[in-house]
Amino acid sequence: MPILVHKYGGTSMGNIERILSNARRVARDIEKGYQVAVVVSAMAGETNRLLGLADEIDPNGSGRERDMLASAGEQVSIALMAMALHRVGHDAISFTAPQAGIKTDPYHTRAKILSIDSTRIKEVLDAGKVAVVAGFQGVTEDMEVTTLGRGASDTTAAAVAAALGAERCDIYTDVDGVYAADPRMVPGAKKISRISYDEMLEMAGAGSKVLQTRSVVFASKYKVPLQVLSSFEDKPGTLISEEVKEMEQVLVTGVCSDKSEARITLLGIPDQPGIAAQVFEAVNEEGISVDMIIQSKGHDGLANMSFTVTKADLGDARKVTEKVCKKLGAREFSVDENISKISIVGVGMKAHGGVAARMFRTLAAKGINIHMISTSEIKISVVVDQDYTELAVRTLAKEFDLVEDKVASA
Amino acid sequence: MPILVHKYGGTSMGNIERILSNARRVARDIEKGYQVAVVVSAMAGETNRLLGLADEIDPNGSGRERDMLASAGEQVSIALMAMALHRVGHDAISFTAPQAGIKTDPYHTRAKILSIDSTRIKEVLDAGKVAVVAGFQGVTEDMEVTTLGRGASDTTAAAVAAALGAERCDIYTDVDGVYAADPRMVPGAKKISRISYDEMLEMAGAGSKVLQTRSVVFASKYKVPLQVLSSFEDKPGTLISEEVKEMEQVLVTGVCSDKSEARITLLGIPDQPGIAAQVFEAVNEEGISVDMIIQSKGHDGLANMSFTVTKADLGDARKVTEKVCKKLGAREFSVDENISKISIVGVGMKAHGGVAARMFRTLAAKGINIHMISTSEIKISVVVDQDYTELAVRTLAKEFDLVEDKVASA
Repeated sequence: MPILVHKYGGTSMGNIERILSNARRVARDIEKGYQVAVVVSAMAGETNRLLGLADEIDPNGSGRERDMLASAGEQVSIALMAMALHRVGHDAISFTAPQAGIKTDPYHTRAKILSIDSTRIKEVLDAGKVAVVAGFQGVTEDMEVTTLGRGASDTTAAAVAAALGAERCDIYTDVDGVYAADPRMVPGAKKISRISYDEMLEMAGAGSKVLQTRSVVFASKYKVPLQVLSSFEDKPGTLISEEVKEMEQVLVTGVCSDKSEARITLLGIPDQPGIAAQVFEAVNEEGISVDMIIQSKGHDGLANMSFTVTKADLGDARKVTEKVCKKLGAREFSVDENISKISIVGVGMKAHGGVAARMFRTLAAKGINIHMISTSEIKISVVVDQDYTELAVRTLAKEFDLVEDKVASA
Repeated sequence: MPILVHKYGGTSMGNIERILSNARRVARDIEKGYQVAVVVSAMAGETNRLLGLADEIDPNGSGRERDMLASAGEQVSIALMAMALHRVGHDAISFTAPQAGIKTDPYHTRAKILSIDSTRIKEVLDAGKVAVVAGFQGVTEDMEVTTLGRGASDTTAAAVAAALGAERCDIYTDVDGVYAADPRMVPGAKKISRISYDEMLEMAGAGSKVLQTRSVVFASKYKVPLQVLSSFEDKPGTLISEEVKEMEQVLVTGVCSDKSEARITLLGIPDQPGIAAQVFEAVNEEGISVDMIIQSKGHDGLANMSFTVTKADLGDARKVTEKVCKKLGAREFSVDENISKISIVGVGMKAHGGVAARMFRTLAAKGINIHMISTSEIKISVVVDQDYTELAVRTLAKEFDLVEDKVASA
């Protein structure tokens, strides 16, 4: 029998009525002839409540104990979901991560899934029951409880779907799909009906918060189609799958913005080979990820270099940069937190040239200055002043046909 | 190094301040040269909150899933307790029941501990750390999560203390010890400084709710002294240990009352051998425990028989009795829920005669009618009308010197 994985996030598990509604949806897919495994998050607000208690004791407390604490939230959800399935007439068995065999590395609060031994889940499905699996949790070889990082239940769902060879993994959430632009910025933004894994990954990296990046990596690696859809209303969502020919017809699939980064600029550094390497080796040693980088030559024969890091890493990045500046004899460095990264994503770019030029022209026409540019095969990102974020996104969405016609013409 | 087990109940785990206060108490015992293992309950109200959610879905839901749900409460507590210990400068490792090797039978919501493999706990203690163990939970051979019944964290604590060969198991709670009579009924009731396991068991069976009966059975079997004391103030509590000579000096150690039972009376049954056996076999087959039994002969050559069951079992007991009545050709049966069992307990009774007579005389002097009597070597219980409960307890407490002098004479 074909297998489906359903995943319900915190809002979808927000109260008993919603949990029962999820159970009825599972029942409908069983009636269609599917075996169903369900992955659930903690009830809305629960993880924050628990970690809030931990913070009252010690905000920098042991990762092991924070994982022990936070994983209790998902344990509550799996039990309630199994009860709700019983209530609507389907036998169900709940699984904590240790019971489901979700093995991770030992890095608490940000563990990565190494393997899933799906034997027990398979047995339960083959016995005609629903398997309800705790998202977010994992267990190490030594039986230590880990968690995969906030929002990682999507990743659990994709990994379980991969391990089971599921036909599809349906991610039920509080939005009804992936939009070509954030509808709060762009009224009438089109919903994407189908998107490739690569585009979805670029969009996640560019600031789209619908799915956790790692879940898309898992799905892509094991070729499990993901579907994002609403748990509150019955309508088609967005299917994330391998690239198909028709996707190239569309020039730009989505436009995203990201205000979470800051730019550091080193001014007046010697223009010699190996300087960039020295800067980024030092930054990398501190475990800081750099996103965009540009280097330019000044009039004085010295070079300037800019790079972006997440604001969360900015404190550490500032310290490293200060050291590096001294070591290299750079004149000074500056930090700009008031930036925004604007990206357009689309596999259509591979087949069609001129997209970048059209993007820059569109922004220029609105008087928006571009500070940095970076491109991949299917993505173009630019850094602009943060004040222009909404204007840039709205203008690009209109330019690349990402707004519903009736709204765009209104 | 000698080992102590501390146990903190729900009220003592009620908020972060109290949890930190518990951690400081553990630290003090470590400074005195002890290794300490801590057993904790869910935070006050948490188990009710969780089971309330379950009841919203289905009050008669799967025991397996109710256990999965409820055990999350203790998982939160162990993590917070370990964090609090870190905060006060002591390394600590939390253990769920599966991690602590607390193996139980597979009877969900009322599992019994079969064994504890204390290897990992021992390792942690020997490494100079505190082991924090989840009360109430267990795990079966098949890695299924079980719970031991409400209030069973006392039992976990006693079992862990036994497995570790602890010097003592300190049960920290919201009362400061075991009293000779319920202080709400008997103002100035004496606190018992030392009591034997057997007396404590009789008192628990007679309605004293301070400790779960099974915890005393464990402690008694493995000869681990239990101490009941307050987590809110620093003063000596009640030590429960093996019987020592001095205990016999005291005639009566405590007086208890129990309103949780109901009496069923069968009237006009044939007075033949084997009749009682038929009645109680039938009752027993339904899994109903009978507490007190009396049989008497009526004027008509027929017999009457009364027995008590807990009110929780009354519905089932009524059905069985109806069937038995028909089968035996009994005239009728009656049920009296308005009864109370009053008991006096004391190892001193073994050495001193006349205690029963003195008890009956004392009650008669107050005009209290006795419906049933049952005795053991160290306990005498009588059933009276429920309205007389407080009067009976107060009068017996005074008679047997269980009230502080200054209060008794006031």
